[in-house]
Amino acid sequence: MRNILIIGAGKSTAQLVKYLLEKAEKEDLYLIIADQVLSNAERLVRNTSRAKAVELNINKIEDRRKQIAEADIVISMLPAFLHNIVAEDCLELAKNLVTASYISDEMLKMDAEVKKKGLVFMNEVGLDPGIDHMSAMRIIDRIRDEGGKIILFESFCGGLLAPESDTNLWNYKFTWNPRNVVLAGQGGAAEFIQEGTYKYIPYHRLFRRTEFLDVENHGRFEAYANRNSLKYRSIYGLDDVLTLYRGTMRRVGFSRAWNLFVQLGMTDDSYNLQHTETMSYREFTNLFLPYSPNDSVELKLRHMLRIDQDDLLWDKLLELDLFNPDKILNLREATPAQCLQHILENKWTLEETDKDMIVMYHKFGFLLNGEQKQIDSTMVIIGENQTYTAMAKTVGLPVAIAALKILNKEITQPGVQLPIAREVYEPILKELEDYGIVFKEHDMPYLGYNPHHL
Amino acid sequence: MRNILIIGAGKSTAQLVKYLLEKAEKEDLYLIIADQVLSNAERLVRNTSRAKAVELNINKIEDRRKQIAEADIVISMLPAFLHNIVAEDCLELAKNLVTASYISDEMLKMDAEVKKKGLVFMNEVGLDPGIDHMSAMRIIDRIRDEGGKIILFESFCGGLLAPESDTNLWNYKFTWNPRNVVLAGQGGAAEFIQEGTYKYIPYHRLFRRTEFLDVENHGRFEAYANRNSLKYRSIYGLDDVLTLYRGTMRRVGFSRAWNLFVQLGMTDDSYNLQHTETMSYREFTNLFLPYSPNDSVELKLRHMLRIDQDDLLWDKLLELDLFNPDKILNLREATPAQCLQHILENKWTLEETDKDMIVMYHKFGFLLNGEQKQIDSTMVIIGENQTYTAMAKTVGLPVAIAALKILNKEITQPGVQLPIAREVYEPILKELEDYGIVFKEHDMPYLGYNPHHL
Repeated sequence: MRNILIIGAGKSTAQLVKYLLEKAEKEDLYLIIADQVLSNAERLVRNTSRAKAVELNINKIEDRRKQIAEADIVISMLPAFLHNIVAEDCLELAKNLVTASYISDEMLKMDAEVKKKGLVFMNEVGLDPGIDHMSAMRIIDRIRDEGGKIILFESFCGGLLAPESDTNLWNYKFTWNPRNVVLAGQGGAAEFIQEGTYKYIPYHRLFRRTEFLDVENHGRFEAYANRNSLKYRSIYGLDDVLTLYRGTMRRVGFSRAWNLFVQLGMTDDSYNLQHTETMSYREFTNLFLPYSPNDSVELKLRHMLRIDQDDLLWDKLLELDLFNPDKILNLREATPAQCLQHILENKWTLEETDKDMIVMYHKFGFLLNGEQKQIDSTMVIIGENQTYTAMAKTVGLPVAIAALKILNKEITQPGVQLPIAREVYEPILKELEDYGIVFKEHDMPYLGYNPHHL
Repeated sequence: MRNILIIGAGKSTAQLVKYLLEKAEKEDLYLIIADQVLSNAERLVRNTSRAKAVELNINKIEDRRKQIAEADIVISMLPAFLHNIVAEDCLELAKNLVTASYISDEMLKMDAEVKKKGLVFMNEVGLDPGIDHMSAMRIIDRIRDEGGKIILFESFCGGLLAPESDTNLWNYKFTWNPRNVVLAGQGGAAEFIQEGTYKYIPYHRLFRRTEFLDVENHGRFEAYANRNSLKYRSIYGLDDVLTLYRGTMRRVGFSRAWNLFVQLGMTDDSYNLQHTETMSYREFTNLFLPYSPNDSVELKLRHMLRIDQDDLLWDKLLELDLFNPDKILNLREATPAQCLQHILENKWTLEETDKDMIVMYHKFGFLLNGEQKQIDSTMVIIGENQTYTAMAKTVGLPVAIAALKILNKEITQPGVQLPIAREVYEPILKELEDYGIVFKEHDMPYLGYNPHHL
């Protein structure tokens, strides 16, 4: 039997394990699922002789190395900052490695050594990053094969709600790490290029500079810019592209309302508030408003943010209980962002029956035979339930498929890499189609960046 | 003769040297003025046998120690981050030290050693910090002596223009380090307390949450909050004060206009732009506006920031040439903040005949015999010219006076300190009065934080 060591039994590991167990007999696989909490791993093993759960504290060097030494390939589903210590062991013990996370600088530094040993360290092979790279490169390579020259690439992805679970005014619940949602866009201005012009959006304007996207049968979405679109120029070989933009998708109206939190300062994670243990939601809101004892917190907020009486923005705030004097934060010296997350989790946590939805949207503009053309490519995946979510499926499946193909020596090119080579993305995308992960393509008139010149 | 070593011959050293030279005969002083650029130091020596200029590279250990070893007291007028290496030498060579900068953590760590050697390291003895501490503590101590209890302390300071030099629409020119003006308020939310309620203002709202201050014979000013008012609670012994607020003063209308730069993202110093060497002012402005080739940069900015046709805000932007396609930045891969500074320096640099003005405003609210009372205390200093500016005078004089009093053993309490002890601030403030640095006090009805409940 061939041992696959899977470290980290979080949300998207379920789908990954399911895939590998289905192949276990035929492929002669044995899964070792390791987690710092044994029950997390056990939950995934179920009734099979093809897998076992082990408790593993990643900081215990001996335990970690013992497990890695016995593996034929290692899949790290740990939080991104923990991949490097696993990668160092894999390098020393000559094991291939798969992760769904961005390649860190530390990981990249191992590239020469990884190549020298003929190892494959495949990263960024989940959803975003992952399916976005693969599906984009497939079309970019095809356009180039046909003699076309890419002049525009825009790419959007969002973790959202299936229509039947879309039951609040924000059209949003947390389908992934809530902290990342609260901090989204922070840490620097968003940078991109439109028609050859560099553009920069500061964080406090980010959620007011959205654009709309219509997806067939799924209606209208909006997107705000991701922080760094420009790094995709070199990764995708698009060095002289005129427009390069990556964004995060939400249902229309989310960003305009989210901007209220940004404007108030509630998403700030850089300092700690005092007395948050006994602070009410209402007192929290009042921290960010001027002192004025004869006015209500409600009116002060309305005035400061200029929210009209009949604006749905207002109902969105009320829905979150932001002015409730009886709900207590009960957090120790928390940052504003931690307090906001707490308030949102109170309302935006998924029910067991809720279904999530992943939407991805690419636009490719290109010149072919002197003509401007455009292809739009979209993917929509709806989850089954709270275990087999669309998010877990689209992150876990490509990781599992990549791991098995590396184990079977179908993917062999050594090095620290992401799945942008044809021999990598073609077989993975092909197999993902069997699981309903399919892109729809539409030929469009070339619209350029701003079709309506608005 | 007693040697006073003055390191750093910058703007506010001129006034300091002038004071000490006037006392040199009577007090038997000899000044060694050291600067990395010899001519800077020579300019201050003039025709006197009581001073000499020396070239000193602060990073050359031997040179630095030789000068310090020969001194009877050391005054460091270097940029704040360089004080520590001077302080370490002073500690080792047992020399007293005076600076006008905030006490750094590194400096504070030396306190026990400084005390053990019986040395005085007097810091924060310029204008702000400096005169603000001394003038505030004088009134706080007096109120306490009379049995009063402080319930409110607000303190404001601004480096501005004398009315006769106030010749642009912004009512502002750079009278001090332009970079600090461009970056003012960044690095975290402003924190303060109003009537017992904590308040936090995020950077992008800071310049829209100003308040007005009227100064007798000088008209109306506005103030925006400084970043950290709360640290003054323990420094001034105001641990149960209800209102504590520190702010920066500007002429009315400055902050509302400055907010446009903040909103656009032009004050960001965290990333570098591309192609700023050949970039026009107009192109720079367009970086922060949506792509829309059929609209002018002017209209896009107006629309985004909602500036009406007849709003003076617009004229302020025009005055700065922000839309000029012919003026080139000519800076290498600069940050937005560096580009903005360049554009502002083009218009806001003082003429040789321009005079600056320093305004300081304190409010003290207190309970005395069951009654709420308030004292307001204000200081206005107008500069003579571009050498003897109000800024140089109010920074340099208290440093010089403190140094001489330490040398004469009139100030003897050892330790790393700031001038909040009575025996320190009383004689310094008294002597400053001879130079026209005088506060006017007004008894006011207690207004609390928000007198008009607006």
